Order: sequence, then structure tokens, then C-alpha cells
Amino acid sequence: MQLNENCPIPLSGSHGLVTLAHGEGGLLSRELIRDHMQVILSDPTLNVSGDAACLSLNSSSIMMTTDSYVVSPLFFPGGDIGSLAVYGTVNDLLVSGAIPYCISLGIIIEEGFPIATLDRILKSVRNACERCSVFVSTGDTKVVPRGQCDQIYLNTTGVGIAGPVVPPGPQAIQPGDEILVTGPIGQHGIAILSARENLQFEPEPTSDVNSLANEINAIKGHMEQVRSLRDATRGGVSAVLHEWAEAAQCTFTIMENQLPISPEVQAACELLGLNPLHIACEGTMVIAAASGQGPLILESLQATGNRDAAIIGTARSRQNAPVTIKNLFDRELPIDEPMGAPLPRIC
Amino acid sequence: MQLNENCPIPLSGSHGLVTLAHGEGGLLSRELIRDHMQVILSDPTLNVSGDAACLSLNSSSIMMTTDSYVVSPLFFPGGDIGSLAVYGTVNDLLVSGAIPYCISLGIIIEEGFPIATLDRILKSVRNACERCSVFVSTGDTKVVPRGQCDQIYLNTTGVGIAGPVVPPGPQAIQPGDEILVTGPIGQHGIAILSARENLQFEPEPTSDVNSLANEINAIKGHMEQVRSLRDATRGGVSAVLHEWAEAAQCTFTIMENQLPISPEVQAACELLGLNPLHIACEGTMVIAAASGQGPLILESLQATGNRDAAIIGTARSRQNAPVTIKNLFDRELPIDEPMGAPLPRIC
Repeated sequence: MQLNENCPIPLSGSHGLVTLAHGEGGLLSRELIRDHMQVILSDPTLNVSGDAACLSLNSSSIMMTTDSYVVSPLFFPGGDIGSLAVYGTVNDLLVSGAIPYCISLGIIIEEGFPIATLDRILKSVRNACERCSVFVSTGDTKVVPRGQCDQIYLNTTGVGIAGPVVPPGPQAIQPGDEILVTGPIGQHGIAILSARENLQFEPEPTSDVNSLANEINAIKGHMEQVRSLRDATRGGVSAVLHEWAEAAQCTFTIMENQLPISPEVQAACELLGLNPLHIACEGTMVIAAASGQGPLILESLQATGNRDAAIIGTARSRQNAPVTIKNLFDRELPIDEPMGAPLPRIC
Repeated sequence: MQLNENCPIPLSGSHGLVTLAHGEGGLLSRELIRDHMQVILSDPTLNVSGDAACLSLNSSSIMMTTDSYVVSPLFFPGGDIGSLAVYGTVNDLLVSGAIPYCISLGIIIEEGFPIATLDRILKSVRNACERCSVFVSTGDTKVVPRGQCDQIYLNTTGVGIAGPVVPPGPQAIQPGDEILVTGPIGQHGIAILSARENLQFEPEPTSDVNSLANEINAIKGHMEQVRSLRDATRGGVSAVLHEWAEAAQCTFTIMENQLPISPEVQAACELLGLNPLHIACEGTMVIAAASGQGPLILESLQATGNRDAAIIGTARSRQNAPVTIKNLFDRELPIDEPMGAPLPRIC
């Protein structure tokens, strides 16, 4: 089906740009949903006329998560706002012990945004949904006048079914527990910064934005030994460990020589004076595993071809600093929690 | 509990304004969530550290809906963006035959937005949630640089449990079916327009933003005779009827002398050249009832003290125009579907 085949008043009447009228509930709104959202997301349950989607879940216990996505630029090496909005929300379900089922898609568009770019983003949403075996159950589109948002913002709210084993959470972490990461650190944040500021690093840093389903699947046989899982998004690995240290009243000590950091992220961080532990990932999670279980979990991850997973540190009884790092000269230094914003609008 | 009681670095360090750092996942993000979102929404399940909320539903069939809210101004006679974001989403669940259970709350804030205003909006969210017997199950906050959104935008995604009788939908509408509205027409759109443009009408038009739970409850004994329900938001009663006419391949004829329109909305529409049928409501729904059932449904609504509900028209076999109005001189005229945007950013 061609996109505008059934469109009585072609959207080209708006010169291929989103107009305020596309957001006002009239004919153009309906056409935008029917000829773009519905066609591209190709989902029969995304009913243009209904106000809510009906979901039949074989579980009385569901998980729910929400995230808005305001990333700039919209397209970056390794992904775009569409794939990010799917993987980000699906990963929040996965690390919470849920089996992702569906997402909602709320779109806020700036007047004048090219419809071709909207279609490209919708296709990316669809592809990411297919890879995650989820679907868009319900959607909404608002258009705001020029200058009242920056191009396009998305919100996805994910619903999943609680899995057989839900990790107890960070308050269960004990001294001696081991901390792992499932992939390289800081890829997403550096890729965004590099693309936004056109930094022209060689090789170009690429976002790790991806589903964590493979990693979750790899460790599922060890889930009883997992205290807590978290995708290391805004604030990076450091933010996860600071939150967990507060919940568990412990200190985490990280070994610098164990951190999986790609040469391009390492080089960019050195040049820009950034700590890779503070930089967001979008396809890497942190695992807190019961003492002695780290090597088994690492083996399971490596058995799937994962070359970047690593045991990066351990939990200890609470010291002065909640998170410390042993550097390459075996000196232990505190890692501050970032107050602030090394990189706005990374997700 | 005072808002900032536990705040080690007082938010007043930001002079009471939201900073980019409040959106970046570090210490200030956590404090904003802990000391404002959690305290004001006063919901123990809104876990600052978790990525997803776990919901125990006694049903395998749930309904889901999403809406973004970009209304301007944020506060208007009768409501604000916070109450609108709750009632709007709850009403979408109610008219779909669901019993509302919870909502997610995604917030996009412009850097520099006053935290006191954020608190006022959060309190309004909480109050509306209490009135609807729903809770905020999960949330997210993003901050964008100045000029990249207009103050604050919300997204709420609602989850409900499918009720005992879910109306079949507009495709079930037959010639002879009766069309009712449960309240006055056009109140919300005119209230927004009047507040935004400072039109100083006397009396001041007030939004009807409210839960439709009372109306749904009043008609629940007749739900088997209801073909379709819809809240008449963007595009007003006219947009609902145009969508239904397409789905049912029928024509609706409205009686102008039956329309419940307040004197202030009537006066404002005449002055501004607007058709009240095109103006959004936020607490009025349209009901399509099986032929002959309209008076019984109207009686049930009136028995709860509702003075504005009315039978406004009937479905007929398809004519040239999908929606027509019989005016005060008994002349039948077509009602066009609004292409466009009489009023941007009304919700």
C-alpha cells in the first residue's frame, strides 16, 4: 500500500510538512494517523477511531514503565529517536524482570516538521518493535506551533508481563556481591555528543542503542543469584551505582582496568575531560550478583559471543564514599555523583 | 513532610527554577523526583529507583490509552494541564468500557520553569487522580534547554481493566439510533481561547474538564443498548460524528434547538464566528444508543442531577453529507468536518 493512496486531500497540500491542522482532531489528523501511523506501524490493533486498546494478557501481574525521548540530533550513528524510544522503554521492562508486551506512542511534533522524516522515524519504531516482539498498542499525536518544541519528541509507555523471577532490587545487595556490565561503557552519550557537535572523531563513536533481550536471555539461568539489574542510561554506570549504594547502604569499588571502554570513547573522554562512568549507555546494563556468582554469569554472557561483558567491581560495607574506583596505579579514589548535566538531551 | 526537608543540596540552589541538571539522571534528578514527584503524588509505588512499576490486576483483559498534553495557558478557568492530563486519559478509558486503574506520567519541562509551578501542577494531578480513584504508577522527567518546549508538556498513559460490557463501537450504529450528549458543548475550547487571548467575556467561560465516571455510572444499566461512546475532545462533537459516520456509513442529523450550549459559549462563538459543534469539550461525551433507548438513557442521566444532557439527533441511512444540522428554521445544512485547527494547543 502506498502511503497516500487513500488520502482524499493529499498531505502534499501541506507541501510535505506537518501543519497545526494535523494535530487538531479533524480530517487531516485522521489522515495522518491512517496513512502514516497505521500504515507504517502496520498494526491492526492501532485503531484510528478507538480511544483505548484492549490487551489480552495471560497474567494478572503486569509491569509498566514510561519515558519521554527528546534526543538531539534525531538521527545519530547507531540509531535514532524512534529506535531509542522503543529499546529504551523495552529495556526498562526487561531489567525489571518483565517480558515486554506492547508500548504506547505519544508524539509531539513542531509545526513544519517534514512528513518524510516522521515516516522515517515511524519505520524505525516499527523495526525496533519487530526486533523486540512488541507492538504499538495505542498512540497520540499533538502538533505545537513553530518554536514550541525542537522538531519532535516521543513518549513510549511500556507494558509487560511479570516474568518468573523478578530480581529483588538494590536493597538486597550485600557486601561481597559482584558488579558486572554487559557491554561497553559510554558509547551512546559520546555518539550523541560527537554527532551533535560534529566532532569528526575517527573512527566515529557509535551508539550502543539496542534491546537487552539477548543479555537477559543469556543470564536467565542465574536469575535467582541476581540482586538487581539496571540499564545504565542517563548518568551512566556511576548513576546506577550511586542509587544502588544509597538503597543498599554499601560502597561499590570499581577496578579501572576492568572497565570495557572502546578506544574511540576513551579518546573522546580524554579529549573532552569526561569520565566514561558518567556517560549514558543505551544497550548496556549493570548486574549486581551474589558473591561468587559473577564468573558464572560472565561465562553465560560470553557464551553468546559477547566480548565486552566484564566483572568491574564489588560491593563492600559502607565507607565514606558510596562509589570508588581503583585506578591503574591501584589508588582508590571516590567517584562523585554527577550533580548535573554533562550532556543534555541525550535520550 | 516538608518538600525539601531531606534535600542535602537544597533545590533553592537553582533559585527555585528547573535546571537542565534536574533532567540528567544525577543527584538533582533524584532529588526532584524524591522531594517533589514522590512527596506530592504521595504514592509509595512510584519508586524512584525502579525502572518499572508492578501492577496486580484481577483481569487478563486490560485497556490502554495514551495522550500528550500541550495546553496553553497551563492554568485556565475550571482546570489546568495537570487535571486535564488525568481526566483526559481516564475519560478515554471510561468511554472504551474500562475501569481506570492507573496512569503513567511523563513530563517534559523547559529549563527555567518555576519549581513552585511544577508543584502546583503535580498537586492538581494528585487531586484529579484521587477523584478518579487512579494512581500514578510510573513517571519520567526530561528537561530541555530554554526555547525547546513551551514551559511544560505532559504525557499520561492510562491502564484500565476491561469492564463487564464494552460497547461494540461506531460500526454497530444503525439508522434510527439516537445521539445524546451528556453535557454542554464547547465549554473547554472557548474557556482556553478566552483565557489565552484574555478576551474578558462576562461571565467568564469555564472549562468542563472533569471525569466522566458519574455519567458512565448513570448509564451503566443501559450499556447493552449503547453502540458507541466517545468524549468530544479535539474537533468537538462534529469530529466524533464524522468519524462515526465513516465507520457506520450513515448520516447523523443534529437538531440545533436541542443542543445544550451555555449562553457564554453561544455568545463567544457568535462573536468569533465559531461553530460550537467544532469546539472541544473535556467532560462531555457523545452516546449512540439503539433506536428508542435515548429517552431512557437521558432519564438516567437526569436522575443524577444532570441538567445539560440531551438527545441531539439521530442516525439515518447514508445521505450525501455525513453530518447535517436542522437549524432553528427547520432547514437542513451539512456540517463540514473541520480540516484544520480552529484552536491549537487546547489540550
